[in-house]
Amino acid sequence: MVDEEQWSSDLVPRFRAQGYDAEQVRSRREWVERKLGVTLPLVASCGIPTDSMRGNIENPIGSIQMPLGIAGPLQVHGAHANGTYYVPLATTEGALVRSYERGMVMLTRAGGVVARVFLDENVVSPIFSFDAVDQAERFVSSLPGHFESLRAEAEATTGHGKLVRVDTRPAGRSVIVNFRFYTADAQGMNMIVKAAERAAQWLVAQGLAPRFHIFSGMCSEKRASGFLLSGGKGKTVVAGARIPAALLSMYVGVTPTQIVRVWHDTVIGHLQANAVGYNGHYANGLTAIFIACGQDVANVANASVGITDFEVTPEGDLYASVTLPSLTVATIGGGTALGTSAECLKLLGCAGAGHAPKLAEIIAASLLAGELSMAGAIGSGEFVAAHETYGRNRPEAAAPR
Amino acid sequence: MVDEEQWSSDLVPRFRAQGYDAEQVRSRREWVERKLGVTLPLVASCGIPTDSMRGNIENPIGSIQMPLGIAGPLQVHGAHANGTYYVPLATTEGALVRSYERGMVMLTRAGGVVARVFLDENVVSPIFSFDAVDQAERFVSSLPGHFESLRAEAEATTGHGKLVRVDTRPAGRSVIVNFRFYTADAQGMNMIVKAAERAAQWLVAQGLAPRFHIFSGMCSEKRASGFLLSGGKGKTVVAGARIPAALLSMYVGVTPTQIVRVWHDTVIGHLQANAVGYNGHYANGLTAIFIACGQDVANVANASVGITDFEVTPEGDLYASVTLPSLTVATIGGGTALGTSAECLKLLGCAGAGHAPKLAEIIAASLLAGELSMAGAIGSGEFVAAHETYGRNRPEAAAPR
Amino acid sequence: MVDEEQWSSDLVPRFRAQGYDAEQVRSRREWVERKLGVTLPLVASCGIPTDSMRGNIENPIGSIQMPLGIAGPLQVHGAHANGTYYVPLATTEGALVRSYERGMVMLTRAGGVVARVFLDENVVSPIFSFDAVDQAERFVSSLPGHFESLRAEAEATTGHGKLVRVDTRPAGRSVIVNFRFYTADAQGMNMIVKAAERAAQWLVAQGLAPRFHIFSGMCSEKRASGFLLSGGKGKTVVAGARIPAALLSMYVGVTPTQIVRVWHDTVIGHLQANAVGYNGHYANGLTAIFIACGQDVANVANASVGITDFEVTPEGDLYASVTLPSLTVATIGGGTALGTSAECLKLLGCAGAGHAPKLAEIIAASLLAGELSMAGAIGSGEFVAAHETYGRNRPEAAAPR
Amino acid sequence: MVDEEQWSSDLVPRFRAQGYDAEQVRSRREWVERKLGVTLPLVASCGIPTDSMRGNIENPIGSIQMPLGIAGPLQVHGAHANGTYYVPLATTEGALVRSYERGMVMLTRAGGVVARVFLDENVVSPIFSFDAVDQAERFVSSLPGHFESLRAEAEATTGHGKLVRVDTRPAGRSVIVNFRFYTADAQGMNMIVKAAERAAQWLVAQGLAPRFHIFSGMCSEKRASGFLLSGGKGKTVVAGARIPAALLSMYVGVTPTQIVRVWHDTVIGHLQANAVGYNGHYANGLTAIFIACGQDVANVANASVGITDFEVTPEGDLYASVTLPSLTVATIGGGTALGTSAECLKLLGCAGAGHAPKLAEIIAASLLAGELSMAGAIGSGEFVAAHETYGRNRPEAAAPR
Repeated sequence: MVDEEQWSSDLVPRFRAQGYDAEQVRSRREWVERKLGVTLPLVASCGIPTDSMRGNIENPIGSIQMPLGIAGPLQVHGAHANGTYYVPLATTEGALVRSYERGMVMLTRAGGVVARVFLDENVVSPIFSFDAVDQAERFVSSLPGHFESLRAEAEATTGHGKLVRVDTRPAGRSVIVNFRFYTADAQGMNMIVKAAERAAQWLVAQGLAPRFHIFSGMCSEKRASGFLLSGGKGKTVVAGARIPAALLSMYVGVTPTQIVRVWHDTVIGHLQANAVGYNGHYANGLTAIFIACGQDVANVANASVGITDFEVTPEGDLYASVTLPSLTVATIGGGTALGTSAECLKLLGCAGAGHAPKLAEIIAASLLAGELSMAGAIGSGEFVAAHETYGRNRPEAAAPR
Repeated sequence: MVDEEQWSSDLVPRFRAQGYDAEQVRSRREWVERKLGVTLPLVASCGIPTDSMRGNIENPIGSIQMPLGIAGPLQVHGAHANGTYYVPLATTEGALVRSYERGMVMLTRAGGVVARVFLDENVVSPIFSFDAVDQAERFVSSLPGHFESLRAEAEATTGHGKLVRVDTRPAGRSVIVNFRFYTADAQGMNMIVKAAERAAQWLVAQGLAPRFHIFSGMCSEKRASGFLLSGGKGKTVVAGARIPAALLSMYVGVTPTQIVRVWHDTVIGHLQANAVGYNGHYANGLTAIFIACGQDVANVANASVGITDFEVTPEGDLYASVTLPSLTVATIGGGTALGTSAECLKLLGCAGAGHAPKLAEIIAASLLAGELSMAGAIGSGEFVAAHETYGRNRPEAAAPR
Repeated sequence: MVDEEQWSSDLVPRFRAQGYDAEQVRSRREWVERKLGVTLPLVASCGIPTDSMRGNIENPIGSIQMPLGIAGPLQVHGAHANGTYYVPLATTEGALVRSYERGMVMLTRAGGVVARVFLDENVVSPIFSFDAVDQAERFVSSLPGHFESLRAEAEATTGHGKLVRVDTRPAGRSVIVNFRFYTADAQGMNMIVKAAERAAQWLVAQGLAPRFHIFSGMCSEKRASGFLLSGGKGKTVVAGARIPAALLSMYVGVTPTQIVRVWHDTVIGHLQANAVGYNGHYANGLTAIFIACGQDVANVANASVGITDFEVTPEGDLYASVTLPSLTVATIGGGTALGTSAECLKLLGCAGAGHAPKLAEIIAASLLAGELSMAGAIGSGEFVAAHETYGRNRPEAAAPR
Repeated sequence: MVDEEQWSSDLVPRFRAQGYDAEQVRSRREWVERKLGVTLPLVASCGIPTDSMRGNIENPIGSIQMPLGIAGPLQVHGAHANGTYYVPLATTEGALVRSYERGMVMLTRAGGVVARVFLDENVVSPIFSFDAVDQAERFVSSLPGHFESLRAEAEATTGHGKLVRVDTRPAGRSVIVNFRFYTADAQGMNMIVKAAERAAQWLVAQGLAPRFHIFSGMCSEKRASGFLLSGGKGKTVVAGARIPAALLSMYVGVTPTQIVRVWHDTVIGHLQANAVGYNGHYANGLTAIFIACGQDVANVANASVGITDFEVTPEGDLYASVTLPSLTVATIGGGTALGTSAECLKLLGCAGAGHAPKLAEIIAASLLAGELSMAGAIGSGEFVAAHETYGRNRPEAAAPR
């Protein structure tokens, strides 16, 4: 289907209706293969119907595959997730699944993980510019009085997003307005950007502000920032568990005091690095679950900001927790319905509307397992050994031929 | 192959030799399916030979699939990458491939992107504890004199990693030592953790330090921190290009002044958020390339820290750049040889030894394209419109049935 | 008055009623002089009546002196400060007064500075601990319902502080509660800590929380943090001015474009340093005014967090602004009534009740002058020359004999 | 001496030779008094010879006074400070001196404080701009080869500063160069800015870089940043002590476990605030000592960044430490020789050349005392009570009449 002109051009071929039917995808892939002198048989062996990719990707040439493992059982006592779960993890990092699994088994044997969602918002932060500081101040003062209008404008663009509140941050003669939305079970960024844009345009139309940019970056979508610690990029979710000293010793080979000692030393390291928040490796678990479950994986940049805590209880046991202030998850929209994602979400009982808070609680509990396992490995000195056993710690052997 | 006991247990079945042959993987998957009452046909349709998954995952049940698109042409003038590339992007975020593509075409039409690697190190940061501050100080003072011994110890564990230097950070009676390695074309974290552990054990054996934890968190592997801005988690790579005003207007619909205005406003937003670094959406491009190319995707948490810059030149054109201080990439080891990853790396001419710096330069140039496209969309006010055209801005419609 | 036992002890002598009368202060100073073999004639030449020091210091031995300079005129168009001011600056850094003065004159010639207070709060952030995450969540959920009780308890301890709102930040099984107060013209920290403590004790007495620590550090009193950017440590105040290009050139020797270029380059430097906020040298001006005017000088650590902005206007002029989110100032309480402080506050028309917002606006306008002068010195390359002329750039000559 | 024209002008009167003689200072003060309708008798009662103010201030009108208290004994076992000290503290915050004093006495009774200087550098960070990324890379690569020339140029401007090393930070087509100097006993900022400027001019003259700005802000002079944690703004100094549980209980009323609990809760608060470093109130002690001893008080903004640590020892005692990575202190130059400053430095045995490291160790030990006292007050719940006893917690009563 690629014509002469397309072969001679350096542009990726364009097709009718953007080219999502199977034949078009094959043609595009062949163009790539011939142009670059490669073959892409595994990319071609795509189980996702190409037509269903519309809205999720452009210029499709097939799909990638990544190994999927399963870890569990993980007992969760949440407000939304109540039961025992097996968590799908897509990764290529050896030892990761095993590490999360041992934490999950330990937590389950300890009676399970308590999890709660504290806040559920997504935020867009346009910046409005004025001619002078006094005008910026008037705008800030007047904004509360326009809230109902802003809400009406914003919600006119969406059947699901609800404008919950707005707050402002002045900077010179500019003002950043945080539009905070409830987005139900969607990640919702596209939804609320559209809604915020309409509200912002209304402010301009009313003569309340001369101009704006729809993004200021303050909302911290897909980036790390201190702002995320106050929530706003999805669910603020916390998971915690009490682990008897005997179980901790049996599963991860350390005492509560040893694990608190790891916490101490690594808090020092995080402070020295001027890190945002403190945790062992949220990014590992989040990435593996996000890839498996069709989440927007780039949101790991914001979702991985959080705080892990370990304390010895008066009884000599361990209380462990994870706090995820800005966990961005969805069970509808984005990639959630696509191919393997839908299967993985179903496996968790989290497919479709009404399940995003449940998914958030399961993820938080999973990360708690990973934190305990990692801290145990550091405290017991077995981290390297574990990676020797399960990992691919021989890059020379792994080089493609 | 799952026996009675395994069916009645809540533990994921264990198999001989950890269970990587196709039959074992199938059995494990069936256990999951029956236990949870789901079917996983697409997870099952796995093109990666299950035996090859050993070292990359545990408890495998199949693979996930994610749509793969192609963006280009992208002309790069690097020290390692010299030519025109088409970049594989795995994502489910509609409009992302199109957005990067238009940036790439514009950059190519503008004469291409200059890219350079400034630093190439990976770091492990164990923390050593002493009884008192004066002992910590003596340790710090003595360390330079032991460098050759530390190097010998560290390098005894690896054929590829080279200990380049060590530096120290005191904290009370503790001392963090940054062991900085050159890891050639591997991500190298497992390699250098093992090497640093041996060096640390040598220090203890010599009586120079009483004890240590192999991780302090300071190295910022898979997390965001200010420390990353000084490099140390892979390549410090910079890419820049001059874009004539006319091309900028044609491709992204803004003037250089407008795009610098976006930079101004979003710098303010990043400062307000207390963000680490400043950029539009590195995480998007990085995630898409990392998933496609078998990188450790969780490294996006560190790799996405960086600084984008836009300046109007005296001639009225735009100079645009991205600075990625801690870009973690590999062309051997990890998931790089696995299934679709190897195909995607070959497509870039980056498979195997000797290609990691090249991959780093291509990635930096790709991100530059994404930054320009994003900033253009903000400056021209067309961001929402673009996502309406290409995205799936209708989460209700996308819910699984 | 120092008896034998006191002479032989290493403890600083204790006196009846804590020792604030002139004779006691003299005795204490003599004890120091004899114990250490020094003479302190200038410390002794103290103009502040020693009795009036009670409540401001313990173990007084006299007073220190620091040179006081005057800078102005500074025209301010604030909501509280309207007029032309001369600002007292106590410093030993040569060139500082001259630098602020030239900025002030330029701003006044340009028509003056617009200043506004956007927010006026002080905050105390106790941390409450619970046995498990679900209890923490219940506490957070219930708190809004107790606001009136909390307010009644808190305000029972003070005639001036008003509890404006509370917000919460969960961390594992702990919850930080930000008690936000209006403190009128006082710095108010002692006042609101007492008030927050009573409210916190009420929560414990009601069985709503088992225990708390009155400080979590989150409020960022006298430290730098990202949290400060959202306000809460005093006044959020912004000052801005338009400076015609000709005036800018005449007074600081640069064009608007040059000064924006300095802004660009130094923003890059701040991002690289992972600084909190962005500014040239707020700390210089703040410290000099705080020392002169009896402010709590340690609050410079929080008050110096802020954002300076420079933009070229469409007409080719400069718009310059400073944003101080957490400017801690007082016109009553603390050291404000003491000796030279009262004189300096009167000089600004800011002594006593009702004047704290006015003082805040004058300070913001002063800092704007300093930022412009500093940026001009960098842009014109004359920074070193200015310090050569006015400074003491010869430490060898300055050594005491 | 103020003539008619000066009376009618709004400019602060100018005098011959900048106006430092007593009569000129008096005239200038009278101009202020008449212009503003105030009297400044205490400002006038200035014990510092006005002529000696030259180089430390411009437009002098007298001096300010601040109460000075004394705290001790403080036993220090440093590499430079060895003995028992009484520390002068200038403040108006009631309870501060008492709080530091009780910490000092406890530390002395516990056997004293061990203190060490780990690093001693000051840094200036000019930013060089190039036309494109490849030129920036060449500059970075070539710089090590020019080190001896840079050193010769830099050191030609100063008899005291020594250029120790340079390192680089790329950002797009710009490069920040950190020039790191040893400045002996001077704060040295003016000295090294001049030196760095000459080195930078040499680079431009050699054609190695087209242009530069002398400041990028990265050096973090007088501001808070993550960069400071790696040192560079003066001394990196650490102080620590072991405090037997019985002494801790006697002096600050808490057990080691309670104080570690405070550490835990306040670390959480600092992480939540995205604070730079972690400490209780370094700014309080630093400010009081800096004002007393003629330091550049604005440097508190950088010097107050650091990390406090508390640990329970195996024997059940407390090990406490403070780490100050960027403590900016001087014993020559600046305000150190001026009036009361020289007296206070002599009182510490720190006046003049050769004493800056000693002063740094005494300051670190003092801050340790303050941290212990503060943490004890939080842990024992007596913080408010202490401020009731010693402070001026009644702003209404303190209002000037």
